[in-house]
Amino acid sequence: MTGVPLATAAGRALVDEAMRAAIERLDPWTRRVTAYHLGWVDADGRPVTGGGGKALRPALALLSARAAGAAPETALPGAVAVELVHAFSLLHDDIMDGDRTRRHRPAAWTVFGPSAAILGGDALMTIAIELLLDEDGPAAQRAARVLTEATRRLIAGQARDLDFESRDDVSLDECLAMVADKTGALLACSCAIGATLADAPPALVDALDRFGAELGMAFQLVDDLLGIWGSPDTTGKPVLSDLRARKKSLPVVAALAAGTAESRRLAELYARPAPRPEDELRETARLIEAAGGRAWAEAQAAHRLEQAETRLGRARMDDGVRAELRDIARFVTARDH
Amino acid sequence: MTGVPLATAAGRALVDEAMRAAIERLDPWTRRVTAYHLGWVDADGRPVTGGGGKALRPALALLSARAAGAAPETALPGAVAVELVHAFSLLHDDIMDGDRTRRHRPAAWTVFGPSAAILGGDALMTIAIELLLDEDGPAAQRAARVLTEATRRLIAGQARDLDFESRDDVSLDECLAMVADKTGALLACSCAIGATLADAPPALVDALDRFGAELGMAFQLVDDLLGIWGSPDTTGKPVLSDLRARKKSLPVVAALAAGTAESRRLAELYARPAPRPEDELRETARLIEAAGGRAWAEAQAAHRLEQAETRLGRARMDDGVRAELRDIARFVTARDH
Repeated sequence: MTGVPLATAAGRALVDEAMRAAIERLDPWTRRVTAYHLGWVDADGRPVTGGGGKALRPALALLSARAAGAAPETALPGAVAVELVHAFSLLHDDIMDGDRTRRHRPAAWTVFGPSAAILGGDALMTIAIELLLDEDGPAAQRAARVLTEATRRLIAGQARDLDFESRDDVSLDECLAMVADKTGALLACSCAIGATLADAPPALVDALDRFGAELGMAFQLVDDLLGIWGSPDTTGKPVLSDLRARKKSLPVVAALAAGTAESRRLAELYARPAPRPEDELRETARLIEAAGGRAWAEAQAAHRLEQAETRLGRARMDDGVRAELRDIARFVTARDH
Repeated sequence: MTGVPLATAAGRALVDEAMRAAIERLDPWTRRVTAYHLGWVDADGRPVTGGGGKALRPALALLSARAAGAAPETALPGAVAVELVHAFSLLHDDIMDGDRTRRHRPAAWTVFGPSAAILGGDALMTIAIELLLDEDGPAAQRAARVLTEATRRLIAGQARDLDFESRDDVSLDECLAMVADKTGALLACSCAIGATLADAPPALVDALDRFGAELGMAFQLVDDLLGIWGSPDTTGKPVLSDLRARKKSLPVVAALAAGTAESRRLAELYARPAPRPEDELRETARLIEAAGGRAWAEAQAAHRLEQAETRLGRARMDDGVRAELRDIARFVTARDH
């Protein structure tokens, strides 16, 4: 997957350099795992090109500083920190979810073992906060505080998501609250952290935070849709993997809660033990769509994006920066990127 | 195991209350695991009494503030933070090491599963730093910075320790460096964080840090000795568990490096695959002793304690506080506590 195209190449280079400097702080053992996980090296430590994720969160963080009228460099420790927390969460989540593939490659824990992946995640989380604390002054301290709170919510969201797997009575409200924690909190933090570091007025920080929270919901809804109906080329994961793992993602919970005949049939399929044959997974996807889960998620994603844009429209900032934030929001919630 | 007896009951109650308030910040899922891990509740969430660890690190942190002439309360966020980081590391280490018992109870990961234990550890680490960031001002920011650096070293030490398990050429210097990171860094931080929060002169912070680093080495040497020759009543772990796991602990590495006939026989035993019968483990312990590993570790522990006391003797602080720090150091490095 390529980077967010609307973020400048200069911004991306800035973040990339600072990310590499951050990873240099690590001991050789956790550095090896994390450099692989970040897509920089192969399993033997040889550099590879074209790896890495979308760098969505750093792009938002740099724009967040610009929204406050500051240079993007002001946000740099924050941009790197949010990306490191994101990387930490993926590294640990893959172990917990048993996901063997990440961005078209074997997940780090399958290459280096779960222990190395646990420690690698721990290390990423630690240096994320350390980076912010290296900056002096109350703004950096506030930014570190915002990041730890977002991290705590992210962890809570993942814990709740795992809890859902063993429950058959998950409500849509519970599922939305889980996503607000698991995905929304760190995206909201990414959108606000640059402005926080730039010492922006609380009203602007708050508006950016809310924009990010809504964007996070839209983003997760689209991700959930791709997890069921996306092609492996796009997702970097095996086809139907979310259904194979019996994830209670938003379209699934919406379909289960719809009270239709298909909802009941879907609940039966979800209650069956593993292994799940391919045709059963395809039938599951069909039932989610027939029960209205797909249409609901698509409408909800559009609604959340609209809400995000409304928040953005009301905030005081340069119109060029506003347009860049809006374009990123539209890009990452488009179905075919 | 009972608490550090020389820490005042008032201090212990202060920390206990603040620890419980900190855990209240967590979502119900990670709170459940962490409250069990901390010895407050049983597997079903029912309160239990008499649980918990020695609370060595919080006791040192409170004394650290008093060494700087401040009230122990000044150190409270730091005292709780170091204990939370310690708890985080044990929670994750038990998963990685496959240790099924902790403080005479089933380890948390065996009760709640590895995923819940991974998340519980992540959550503990996050709130540890959050607690310090809740305090305003540059001293709190410095304390948070010191804690993240100690945490990073602790993780590096554990990574190196795991790496040792698959290597048969670990030198004593490497092993000492590993222990300085894995155990020394957080103990040094515990001894310095109260003075840091009290805005003490750098010379005092530095002296306390070095005292803690030496104490950490002595403490780990004694712990390693107990891991081989200690009784399960004392350690809370099965007998000979460190040898069963083929840990390259300090007495083992010293014995392997001694170049005796017993060293070579020991290396052969260490190279054998699992499972390890009981009599082989007893033979391993005998060889470590015969190769001089036990005597070296005992002498080294005494030397490190002496070094710690020397550091303490040179620092400018109230003599009563100095005596309390010295007594704690002697107590936790005594063989029979």
